[in-house]
Amino acid sequence: MINPLQKIITVSLSLFFFIACNNPVKNEIEIESLPKEIPFALVIHGGAGTIKKEYMTPEMETAYTNKLQEALDAGYQVLESGGTAILAVKKAINIMEDSPLFNAGKGAVFNSLGKQEMDASIMDGKTLNAGAVTGVSHIKNPINAAILVKDSTRHVMLSGFGAEEFAKQYDLKFEDESYFFTDKRYQQLLKAQGKEQALLEINTLNVELIDNHQYGTVGCVALDKDHNIAAGTSTGGMTNKKFGRIGDSPIIGAGTYANNLTCGVSCTGTGEYFMRTLAAHEVSNLIQYKNYDLKKALHQVIHIEIDSLGGDGGMISLDKNGNIAWNFNTSGMYRAYKKSTGENIVKLYEE
Amino acid sequence: MINPLQKIITVSLSLFFFIACNNPVKNEIEIESLPKEIPFALVIHGGAGTIKKEYMTPEMETAYTNKLQEALDAGYQVLESGGTAILAVKKAINIMEDSPLFNAGKGAVFNSLGKQEMDASIMDGKTLNAGAVTGVSHIKNPINAAILVKDSTRHVMLSGFGAEEFAKQYDLKFEDESYFFTDKRYQQLLKAQGKEQALLEINTLNVELIDNHQYGTVGCVALDKDHNIAAGTSTGGMTNKKFGRIGDSPIIGAGTYANNLTCGVSCTGTGEYFMRTLAAHEVSNLIQYKNYDLKKALHQVIHIEIDSLGGDGGMISLDKNGNIAWNFNTSGMYRAYKKSTGENIVKLYEE
Repeated sequence: MINPLQKIITVSLSLFFFIACNNPVKNEIEIESLPKEIPFALVIHGGAGTIKKEYMTPEMETAYTNKLQEALDAGYQVLESGGTAILAVKKAINIMEDSPLFNAGKGAVFNSLGKQEMDASIMDGKTLNAGAVTGVSHIKNPINAAILVKDSTRHVMLSGFGAEEFAKQYDLKFEDESYFFTDKRYQQLLKAQGKEQALLEINTLNVELIDNHQYGTVGCVALDKDHNIAAGTSTGGMTNKKFGRIGDSPIIGAGTYANNLTCGVSCTGTGEYFMRTLAAHEVSNLIQYKNYDLKKALHQVIHIEIDSLGGDGGMISLDKNGNIAWNFNTSGMYRAYKKSTGENIVKLYEE
Repeated sequence: MINPLQKIITVSLSLFFFIACNNPVKNEIEIESLPKEIPFALVIHGGAGTIKKEYMTPEMETAYTNKLQEALDAGYQVLESGGTAILAVKKAINIMEDSPLFNAGKGAVFNSLGKQEMDASIMDGKTLNAGAVTGVSHIKNPINAAILVKDSTRHVMLSGFGAEEFAKQYDLKFEDESYFFTDKRYQQLLKAQGKEQALLEINTLNVELIDNHQYGTVGCVALDKDHNIAAGTSTGGMTNKKFGRIGDSPIIGAGTYANNLTCGVSCTGTGEYFMRTLAAHEVSNLIQYKNYDLKKALHQVIHIEIDSLGGDGGMISLDKNGNIAWNFNTSGMYRAYKKSTGENIVKLYEE
């Protein structure tokens, strides 16, 4: 029921808005006051270590560059079509897990018993929900199992045989050991074991040989159109690792962290130093409590906190405004980012 | 060779100091300017949960009180005689691990397969060195294995069978399953499994039943005469846990953290919330970066950050000046502290 007074008001208001909207000056102001295009972005890494141009063939350089771009595009496509940051992280990491170039999924390194034990973790910056698996040997994409832990349990971390038993209840792809095998990684194991033998003769307490040249953990941080941040990391750990060693990649706050209030972070390197400094959480807290920007926070953690303990590695990060930063104290890090502003960067070496 | 001039100077100086030291006013000033007695202290917990006076018999109350006091005294004795904070944490936790009253070592809870899988971690606030084991079933004192990982490897965390294989290389006590068995814990498993069956009929995705009444993780934070802080935590995890679930106790930054710059922390409760908030590291950062005192930092983490996620549990902490704080959002927490100032407090319930 519309009474005559309401009719007059409605017509007057319509007329006012018609005139207002056709006034070019008003219109300009209106466009300016509209929110700018919603920014979205993602950043990935494929490990830090001794990555120098002089050690690379042109073919290897092309292979790494193309694979990073493929992972970047897969994640970006999710974000562009309005998908979640979690899904973008999953898609980007899956591409790298499926590639033998990186130490995650297919092509994971071997432990001292010649087995592949993989770890992965994911964190949702909106809810602070998180999931992780450690020591899985047959799950094709460990990051997918981490997402399942986040979504389908009250837990954060499942390990080993138990984690695989859990994953079998769901529609996850399993593969046998031959799928994960690569000759390159096996040769690295033999080399590490040879070196270790030499080392052990000097110091029997040296239970692990760290080969600085063999990182290759993968990770991704994404910001979606809903302003949600997610971060994920997937790895095969360290070549020749022993005694069920767990590194930083499956540890929330060490290798992976995301919080919509601050940023998302994924790390790679000698995991123990990232665990002792809670590297990913530390970056977030420096932003939240010290008002550091992303770049300054990463510098502090990598070049002051981790450096002072003698650790090495790198980090990628992305803040709530879509700013991206990375840092490493190794000679290189496989890394790339793509933003809704059009930027698309792929890098391998220091510069 | 002393020449005559040196002789004169030496004699004059000796005379000066003799007179100065016998001047009562000077002496008073000298005493005041001496550093005050070096403070040392330790704080322990034996788990948080539904701990209410009406649920306790006088015998149980006495048993818990006496055992907490025994653990406190063992750690205090180390500190008083000039021992390290690490050793004090070890001694105090060993007493609680050896007691069937707590969910750590003897008396650890059972997982869904009727096995006991224990976790422990330790951190040294001076060096930020840390060690942890997860999923060990035969090591009498898991905290001792964590200390061994810290001291004898480059790693922070070893898991399951591998962790036990590592520990076998050293002089650690092993026990078979009958040692760890207690009927009380086994009844708790049967009860939990009964409840779970009922729950599963409602929601098949509920992979774990959390029984709020069955916490009992133990922990200790100590400050020694050298101003070094150490923190440690030891647990059997959650009754009826499945799929190799790892909680916060073996995670550096979640269940345990120590840093001489700030404080030491040990946590207990539903571990997943302490993992998602990096509870122990968060307390340290609130002190370091926001200038919170210990009490305010604990309130923020327990009653704001963990509460807002729906988590429950408690924390003990001790700062570089020997201040002690604890907090919990459950109805009680087994807890106690002893300071070189003479304070000796043992508490079980809320107040």
